[in-house]
Amino acid sequence: MVAMRAVALAALALSLCAVPALAAPKSKSPPAPSPSPPAPPPVPAVEPSAGSAAGASTFGPAVGIIVAGGVFGLLFALFQLYHVAKIEVEPGKRAEGYSNMEDGSDTNSKLKLYEVYLAIQDGAKAFLAAEYVLCGIFVVVFGAIVFVLTSNTPDGFNMLIGGCTAASFVVGALTSIVSGYAGMMVAVYSNARTTIAAEGENEAGWSASFNTAFRAGGVMGFSLTSLAMLVLLGLIGALASIIPGSLSEDEDFAKVLFECVAGYGLGGSCIAMFGRVGGGIYTKAADVGADLAGKVVSGIPEDDPRNPATIADNVGDNVGDVAGMGSDLFGSYAESTCAALIVAASSAEMVAAGWGAILFPVCFSSFGIVVCALASFLATDISPVKKETDVETVLKVQLAVTALLMTGCTYPLAYFLLPAQFTIGGVLATPFSAWICITAGLIGGCVVGFITEYYTSHSYTPVREVAQSCETGAATNIIYGLALGYKSAVIPIGVIAIVTFISFTYAAMYGVALGALGFLGTLATCLSIDVYGPVCDNAGGIAEMAELPAHVRDKTDALDAAGNTTAAIGKGFAIGSAALVSLALFGGFVTRIGMEASGVNVLKPITFCMLFIGAMIPYWFTAMTMKSVGTAAMAMVKEVARQFAEIPGLLEGTPGHGPPDHAKCIKISTDASLKEMVPPGMLVILSPILVGALLGVHAVSGLLVGALVSGVQLAISQSNTGGAWDNAKKYVEKGCVSILVNGVPVAQRKGSELHKAAVCGDTVGDPLKDTSGPAINIVMKLMAIISLVFADYFMSINGGHGYLNVQ
Amino acid sequence: MVAMRAVALAALALSLCAVPALAAPKSKSPPAPSPSPPAPPPVPAVEPSAGSAAGASTFGPAVGIIVAGGVFGLLFALFQLYHVAKIEVEPGKRAEGYSNMEDGSDTNSKLKLYEVYLAIQDGAKAFLAAEYVLCGIFVVVFGAIVFVLTSNTPDGFNMLIGGCTAASFVVGALTSIVSGYAGMMVAVYSNARTTIAAEGENEAGWSASFNTAFRAGGVMGFSLTSLAMLVLLGLIGALASIIPGSLSEDEDFAKVLFECVAGYGLGGSCIAMFGRVGGGIYTKAADVGADLAGKVVSGIPEDDPRNPATIADNVGDNVGDVAGMGSDLFGSYAESTCAALIVAASSAEMVAAGWGAILFPVCFSSFGIVVCALASFLATDISPVKKETDVETVLKVQLAVTALLMTGCTYPLAYFLLPAQFTIGGVLATPFSAWICITAGLIGGCVVGFITEYYTSHSYTPVREVAQSCETGAATNIIYGLALGYKSAVIPIGVIAIVTFISFTYAAMYGVALGALGFLGTLATCLSIDVYGPVCDNAGGIAEMAELPAHVRDKTDALDAAGNTTAAIGKGFAIGSAALVSLALFGGFVTRIGMEASGVNVLKPITFCMLFIGAMIPYWFTAMTMKSVGTAAMAMVKEVARQFAEIPGLLEGTPGHGPPDHAKCIKISTDASLKEMVPPGMLVILSPILVGALLGVHAVSGLLVGALVSGVQLAISQSNTGGAWDNAKKYVEKGCVSILVNGVPVAQRKGSELHKAAVCGDTVGDPLKDTSGPAINIVMKLMAIISLVFADYFMSINGGHGYLNVQ
Repeated sequence: MVAMRAVALAALALSLCAVPALAAPKSKSPPAPSPSPPAPPPVPAVEPSAGSAAGASTFGPAVGIIVAGGVFGLLFALFQLYHVAKIEVEPGKRAEGYSNMEDGSDTNSKLKLYEVYLAIQDGAKAFLAAEYVLCGIFVVVFGAIVFVLTSNTPDGFNMLIGGCTAASFVVGALTSIVSGYAGMMVAVYSNARTTIAAEGENEAGWSASFNTAFRAGGVMGFSLTSLAMLVLLGLIGALASIIPGSLSEDEDFAKVLFECVAGYGLGGSCIAMFGRVGGGIYTKAADVGADLAGKVVSGIPEDDPRNPATIADNVGDNVGDVAGMGSDLFGSYAESTCAALIVAASSAEMVAAGWGAILFPVCFSSFGIVVCALASFLATDISPVKKETDVETVLKVQLAVTALLMTGCTYPLAYFLLPAQFTIGGVLATPFSAWICITAGLIGGCVVGFITEYYTSHSYTPVREVAQSCETGAATNIIYGLALGYKSAVIPIGVIAIVTFISFTYAAMYGVALGALGFLGTLATCLSIDVYGPVCDNAGGIAEMAELPAHVRDKTDALDAAGNTTAAIGKGFAIGSAALVSLALFGGFVTRIGMEASGVNVLKPITFCMLFIGAMIPYWFTAMTMKSVGTAAMAMVKEVARQFAEIPGLLEGTPGHGPPDHAKCIKISTDASLKEMVPPGMLVILSPILVGALLGVHAVSGLLVGALVSGVQLAISQSNTGGAWDNAKKYVEKGCVSILVNGVPVAQRKGSELHKAAVCGDTVGDPLKDTSGPAINIVMKLMAIISLVFADYFMSINGGHGYLNVQ
Repeated sequence: MVAMRAVALAALALSLCAVPALAAPKSKSPPAPSPSPPAPPPVPAVEPSAGSAAGASTFGPAVGIIVAGGVFGLLFALFQLYHVAKIEVEPGKRAEGYSNMEDGSDTNSKLKLYEVYLAIQDGAKAFLAAEYVLCGIFVVVFGAIVFVLTSNTPDGFNMLIGGCTAASFVVGALTSIVSGYAGMMVAVYSNARTTIAAEGENEAGWSASFNTAFRAGGVMGFSLTSLAMLVLLGLIGALASIIPGSLSEDEDFAKVLFECVAGYGLGGSCIAMFGRVGGGIYTKAADVGADLAGKVVSGIPEDDPRNPATIADNVGDNVGDVAGMGSDLFGSYAESTCAALIVAASSAEMVAAGWGAILFPVCFSSFGIVVCALASFLATDISPVKKETDVETVLKVQLAVTALLMTGCTYPLAYFLLPAQFTIGGVLATPFSAWICITAGLIGGCVVGFITEYYTSHSYTPVREVAQSCETGAATNIIYGLALGYKSAVIPIGVIAIVTFISFTYAAMYGVALGALGFLGTLATCLSIDVYGPVCDNAGGIAEMAELPAHVRDKTDALDAAGNTTAAIGKGFAIGSAALVSLALFGGFVTRIGMEASGVNVLKPITFCMLFIGAMIPYWFTAMTMKSVGTAAMAMVKEVARQFAEIPGLLEGTPGHGPPDHAKCIKISTDASLKEMVPPGMLVILSPILVGALLGVHAVSGLLVGALVSGVQLAISQSNTGGAWDNAKKYVEKGCVSILVNGVPVAQRKGSELHKAAVCGDTVGDPLKDTSGPAINIVMKLMAIISLVFADYFMSINGGHGYLNVQ
């Protein structure tokens, strides 16, 4: 926790430095130690929306809004953390610290709980440390590549640009690492606390356990978004003071500045890629392995303390769903902001309107933090969870209310900061257009989220049909589930298409970037809900392993089931925003290579043929990651089987049996994920660079469009298929599926053939929904931002036709 | 058979009529009964490749080549049929007719075999009759729509164009129906004959059974291709005599003519859609149902005569894999030819060079028939199958040799018919360019085919890994199989992209159409091999049901296993060609709406947003068809279970038990397929029409590109996943997969847990590889040809911006 606070303070300091840099024009010479000349007298900001009249002077309010929002977010995260920390976990302290834990939990279970809590924490730390060492090596190597390649511009070798881009890359990567690590630390800090809170009976227990998990999510959600924003602002300020020229004096200044800043998004996205893929393989190797070994091979219940893979499974939830998801959404956030800034910088009128107008996207997100924070009291205090059925409702209301508030608040913000009229990408836009684009994204996000819920929650027909199809075995379950996943793409794709059309029409690529930001407008809330899920999942696992009474497990299970659905909603947001972010980045790329006016013609042979290749990349990527999970899971099953065979008394559970060797299982997951995350990562990172360098920018255009168009469908269908199977299994376990035996319906529960069929679907769905599906988001975004960052390098080779000089 | 011969003769007559129509310029008035004016004196054809100098006079050799090839193909089909027919099936006639059948088959088994043979024949006929009634209604209704809508041109209402297009549509649809029906009749005529031939011992038995099945395929392959070509030629001739103007006098003549002829492709493709989807649902409902009921629920072997769903399963092989596949490839063939003709007609130099140059694509296919026929002696006579391991080799050599011969023969043909230089789609092309495009397609087809084999045959690592993954249960099998399918798309997509790039670069969209024809250059052979598969499958089923000795079943099983692999190769060809055909049709569409020069700009909002929608259509389509199969299969399982429960002695196989009620199972499959084929069909047919009418041609462009780019990936991965699971199961059944029991490897065969896991994969794969996967081909092609045929209608609405006037 100390580390997190230190980082937050550093970010704050960095962003405050930005204020003077963004305030004053400076001489064209490289960074001079001499004090900058006095700022021009401020123009009275009576009517800022009157546009360029307000000029460069609006930097004040913009930076003020951003810093205020960021600081508020960090403080709010600390506030949430303070609440979570009030629950004691150490057995010695618990007697005084918390009043409800006497019920049914004796000293022995307290001790066990504490042991498990520490084991998960250690496992997660150890894995992230190993993963981040690899990431560190990557940052150094790839940072050097970024430096060298982006120094190649069509106007010659420019080390300043290369250096600034590489610096942005490193800052982005480090911020992503810190975000992921902090989130994971909070999650493993809160999981056992949620279990303890769930020991409370009745309403109080429900409220306390829900609030603990939800607040843990909030710590992650608010600190990540605030950090992302403050660091970005600081970075902009720092680079603005290094790059020669100023906003008001030099029309190329903003263009160059934000092209360098795009490295921030690249850094975030690269780490997200490794986090998602590495974490995803880790968690699913452990999960699938534990499931198969425990349930299918040896027939012991999930999370049974005898199963040696359970600790790895619990660790996996944290490294995959928390750290991975955090990096992913940090990446989306950073990239969509960068895309919006780059496109904005291409509009002379926006540049003339000054920092306030340009930084509008960042201000919007800052506003979002405050709105999300205020709305979060709805869930924890105004209308708290009191019983099982409340959980889903509260989470959904939370999302909808936040989106609604954001829609309202954005309108005055746009009028306050943006010029009254501005031309962008050939389209004449107004603050109203900007608001429309953001609103389309906000509404689109909610619709995609709720449609995702419809297809993945067992409250509705689709999942129930899948559950019922288990009657005739695993095969029909798989067929129904795959069909469900394919179908679930229909409406979200329609929504994404409509949002694309509206935002594209209203404000060209700037609109698309704003639409993407709209999707992410409720990011702090989404992240809170996302992290909530794995915390509850862990809490349940800890309850099982600490052998706490059934009512505790019942509570955590219900919280977890709601978490599954909301996680699916969160994934819906993530995928929808990823599609728009990639499109916006593609727009940035097109703007940078000067094809915005001429357009991207798919009738160009190289463009069309790269459409095919681009569309194939997500398939290749999925093949790699799924295979990795499959292989690692098989290794895990064999290890578990070996332990059951070789450790006397373990399988039978005879008192005093030897302890299961968790470390061995953790090692299998760790080794598999670190080894297997490299090839898919390289595929995604190298393909745009190689295509651009060899075949040129027309080829890259085809590649990006293909990857985007095919990736978004695959991502949605994979995530939803997996979510549906998971909840279909839960539906069966609740005893809701019956078969007719001699004409009488008999409910089928755990252990029945029908349940085994349901488990098979859940197991297949695991890598789809938690490894490949969400990682495809990053595939789309990462390829796009790489192309954007290296655009000038591509243009420097044969005028953008690549070394092979393809015409 | 009589019907087929009559149709063939009619086609021949029709095509011969074409000769005078294509010979002479005629007056501009509508078709006059008066004799046409005398043809211009023939220019000496010393150097036809000297191009436009040869003028319109080269029609002679072109039409001659086409008619000669077509007639030869029909005769060759009759020759193959004659060989198959020599084997007698009727029990009474068999004693004299065939010498080997005494071995192990007594009168009882002869009678049983005959009964099963008739039951399959009746079932297939009954289903096709029902299906074609629906298709007939569709042809009438949609024909009327085609007539009305295509009469709307930008230049006003023109009933001649609408009428000619509608007539072409009807002719195409009827030809497709005849092709499918004839193919299926041949298949159900030959299945029992293959079984009988397999009764022979040793080499003679292997040769005889292989040759019977292969020749049955040949009947289908050669009659279909010849018929398609002769009817097309006749149609061109007929329309050329109806449409005012002539090739040499009027530069718009060819354009109008071939736009009307495109209806032929549309008709073929619509029937193919219903054939593939209806047949696919039928066959897989029966297959999945029979598998699940027989193997999983009641534990009786596949094709056991007690299982009431087996006849439906065998019927399904014929209606799905033979009739459906036949219509599909007929559609591809007709469409790629139409695309090539339309693009050729847009080149003034091609039109000036006369019929010979324009009809070059048709001549190429005609040549193909002769080459395929000659090469087929390689498999049946020169290097016949003598043992199990020969089968796959012979089939593969057959394909490779045919492709090689075609490559050689096409070169002189191109120089003979095409002008020495011609500008097409802005590219300056030569006969050499045309040859390169075709060769790229021919080689591409072989590479895609053999890669498909690598991923779906159990002779190679990928399928063996999948088989081994069954060790840890069905879930890992599914995960591995899905990963394999995704990965198997990588190289074929690369090949398709390269072929696209080469052909696009060498001869613009004309090159793409030629590339597609190159893919289909070995169509007669591909079809022979495709039909060979289901015939062997049926032969095996018949052997099992007639309780013939094991060596017969062993032979048919081996033939079938090779058939599975080659069917996968055939599907590879079908998918690869479908991708190029759709692209060529898209090129035709772009040419027609005049966007060829300006290009298709994906940065147009409506185009980009429709890219998403287009890419989503194959997903929606897959969801529908898979769900249909799942639902119908579950109904089938329940029906089978009911029969086993209610018919005394059936399950136990007590002598004299009541017969299983096959008819009820056939009815379930029939009803399901007829009901369920309508919604996916409508989705595909209506979406381009509605998009074009409401949102305009820019929207349609996005839709088509999206559907093409995403569909081809899905189709490949689905087909290969299914093929791999099927062969992984066969690999397990051969006893090739072992698990360690106390350190000793123990082979796992039928009935083991490992085998059950393999069966689960196979069952899931069935709808993927035989229903949705191959049908997606048709989705891509059908959407493209609909757009092409209705292009003028779209252009007539607000200048191509649709009723909503989207800019």
